[in-house]
Amino acid sequence: MRKISIPPIAITLIIVVLAGLVVGLLLFINNQPAPTRGVPPLAVIEAMEPVSEKWGVNFPNQYSTLLRTKTNNVRTAFGGSEKVDKLAVDPMLVELFAGYPFSKGYEEDRGHLWSLEDVRTTPRLNDKTPGTCYSCKSSDNPRLWAEMGMAAYDAMKFTELSPEIEQPIGCANCHEANTMRLIVTNPALEEALAAQGKDWKTFTRQEMRSVVCANCHVEYYFKGDGKYLTFPWEGGVTIEAIEKYYDQVAFSDWEHPESGAKLIKMQHPDYELFSAGSTHYNAGVACADCHMPYTRDGAAKFSTHDVKSPLIEPGKSCGTCHTDVAYVTERVNTIQQQVNTTMLNAEKAIIDAIQAIKLAGEQPGSDQALLEEARALHRSAQLRWDFIAAENSMGFHNPEEALRILATATDFARQAQTKAIQSMALGSTAKN
Amino acid sequence: MRKISIPPIAITLIIVVLAGLVVGLLLFINNQPAPTRGVPPLAVIEAMEPVSEKWGVNFPNQYSTLLRTKTNNVRTAFGGSEKVDKLAVDPMLVELFAGYPFSKGYEEDRGHLWSLEDVRTTPRLNDKTPGTCYSCKSSDNPRLWAEMGMAAYDAMKFTELSPEIEQPIGCANCHEANTMRLIVTNPALEEALAAQGKDWKTFTRQEMRSVVCANCHVEYYFKGDGKYLTFPWEGGVTIEAIEKYYDQVAFSDWEHPESGAKLIKMQHPDYELFSAGSTHYNAGVACADCHMPYTRDGAAKFSTHDVKSPLIEPGKSCGTCHTDVAYVTERVNTIQQQVNTTMLNAEKAIIDAIQAIKLAGEQPGSDQALLEEARALHRSAQLRWDFIAAENSMGFHNPEEALRILATATDFARQAQTKAIQSMALGSTAKN
Repeated sequence: MRKISIPPIAITLIIVVLAGLVVGLLLFINNQPAPTRGVPPLAVIEAMEPVSEKWGVNFPNQYSTLLRTKTNNVRTAFGGSEKVDKLAVDPMLVELFAGYPFSKGYEEDRGHLWSLEDVRTTPRLNDKTPGTCYSCKSSDNPRLWAEMGMAAYDAMKFTELSPEIEQPIGCANCHEANTMRLIVTNPALEEALAAQGKDWKTFTRQEMRSVVCANCHVEYYFKGDGKYLTFPWEGGVTIEAIEKYYDQVAFSDWEHPESGAKLIKMQHPDYELFSAGSTHYNAGVACADCHMPYTRDGAAKFSTHDVKSPLIEPGKSCGTCHTDVAYVTERVNTIQQQVNTTMLNAEKAIIDAIQAIKLAGEQPGSDQALLEEARALHRSAQLRWDFIAAENSMGFHNPEEALRILATATDFARQAQTKAIQSMALGSTAKN
Repeated sequence: MRKISIPPIAITLIIVVLAGLVVGLLLFINNQPAPTRGVPPLAVIEAMEPVSEKWGVNFPNQYSTLLRTKTNNVRTAFGGSEKVDKLAVDPMLVELFAGYPFSKGYEEDRGHLWSLEDVRTTPRLNDKTPGTCYSCKSSDNPRLWAEMGMAAYDAMKFTELSPEIEQPIGCANCHEANTMRLIVTNPALEEALAAQGKDWKTFTRQEMRSVVCANCHVEYYFKGDGKYLTFPWEGGVTIEAIEKYYDQVAFSDWEHPESGAKLIKMQHPDYELFSAGSTHYNAGVACADCHMPYTRDGAAKFSTHDVKSPLIEPGKSCGTCHTDVAYVTERVNTIQQQVNTTMLNAEKAIIDAIQAIKLAGEQPGSDQALLEEARALHRSAQLRWDFIAAENSMGFHNPEEALRILATATDFARQAQTKAIQSMALGSTAKN
């Protein structure tokens, strides 16, 4: 082979050019703009972050639909998100709740983002209102419960707790930060499930899509002087099991000033009525399937977070399973009318009972044993009626169960009325 | 062209052979055996032929399944085709029907082919029983109604009519001979539909698959001295419309001997409860879809004629539309239990009312106006309760409507009780 002689200057030149290229390429790479397409990296969210807006950076669709719970005020036949005065719509409620704050103010519950404003402006508030009343109203709660424990939280007065609470219901009430896993955040729910031998951590995702609603949409009471938030579920979630529990612990919210019956105000037992054997629950449908149906925005598909009546967008809510949406919504309408009629008859019966017991109580000769029976029946009737009245679906969460309960409520109320009248008759006979 | 000369004997031979072939072929054709495969020709059935066996020659599958209504006695939770004594199962019925033949004998209704035997052996029969009682019991009826007219039929005594009636319920009750078209055969049904401005001849086949059941499975009464069979449907088929009709014509079946209330025995208003807005009716389901589902026998597919509870073969009945048969049958079970519980509570309430009215009626001082109100309420309560109790589905034909009606029945019964007690108290006060 022939040797090729290269002058050193040429070699130097080659090296310089190559080194220049390396530097140039490195500079080029380093100066590339950040990617402008694809999924932006997730912002890190603090555990139990109360501010939903921060979570919204990562989940703009869910957050922007949550915002609609403040503006979406479409009214259905029996619900909506407006400040409707229930006492004006149905004046019988004033007598039914006489002696209890609900006779002073009872407004339609509004969307999730109204929760804090509404609880702070209700005329039901007074100096004695416990902090426990905040339990379902704020995404600050998971953090506060973790920091101070629920017992300390519940032992505070409402006004004492107010400075700690800034946010309405939000992401942190149902989700674990960053994993976005659905979680039980309300210690009272965890305890109530445990009392039934259930551990929510073993639940399927579909079960969790109902159970997180039970963080709030349940019947509860404030136990003891510490006003400890407690769900009366030890024996189950049927009205009979709940009544039995309350009778055993001898609990009542107040004494009706006219009948003298020791009564219980039911809260919003949506989860109980729904899960006590309703056809949708038994078929595996979750609360979120109907109230937060999957929805699209462009290419994105997500569970809408403007939690509302399925009757507002039945195509999305009912239409996922039912092909004939017009048919099923008409069916809901029929059932709600049937329940409403039966519910109003129960109210009339309870009011007749109250008036009869009042009259009998005013007669000195009335038979006291019969009067006490009448008062016990008033209690049984009213907690049944209110279980359906306070519930948010006008019976649709479990139509046959709702009607069965209302039939019993009316029966007990009329029996209470009869006992009261008998107590007078017997007193009168004894007098004679 | 060359001429061919054929001898005449040859021509004759050709003609003879051809003629022989023609005769032979004609004989061959004439002697073919009758076809031995394919559909045999239909036997001609006389119009309104009462004997179902004759129709069975043409429709062996339908006929052989009809025969099973005599042998198929599978019992469900609330029904069956056995001689179950309802008065023994639920002794409250004896008091509810006191003074009326149903307190003497009230047996479970059995399959169609038992109809004649059962109506002739019921202890409810007496010398006054009108022929009208045969109206739903025999396939002789269409012929008899055509021959003598329904008015003449109804004017006869039961025992007078007996020799004319030989067949139980059969083909002629619902079908036109030869065309097999579904037809309304009971003149009372035709008249009841006409009173609502409806002409059954304009109905679709699917509508007819329910309406033919209304030939019998309805509430009816015997109008006037002629005991003219009449359905109380002028204002519609809801219980409120039926009550209004009976009040307007001031009809009652009997006076309760203890309460003095003028009562109505409901028959078997299956069609009314089902068609008054039930979800299955509204969805276009016919009676026959569930009670006579399409079934197979080899290559044949036909509506089974062993009319029975859909719970006996839910796969055929429910499974045509519902994929999860185990789920829907459990659902039926739940609903029937709910209705049964509520129904028994209504019975207790009515019995309490009867006893209170009886007691008040025995006190000379009782307020008579209040007592009359109590009796009117007893009537309203009992016809509602019996509308559901006499109906054959334990409420399942229309669950929410059944529970709504029972709730009202209980309400009215307890109000009746209260009025009765008040009538005594008022009488007592007046006396003082």
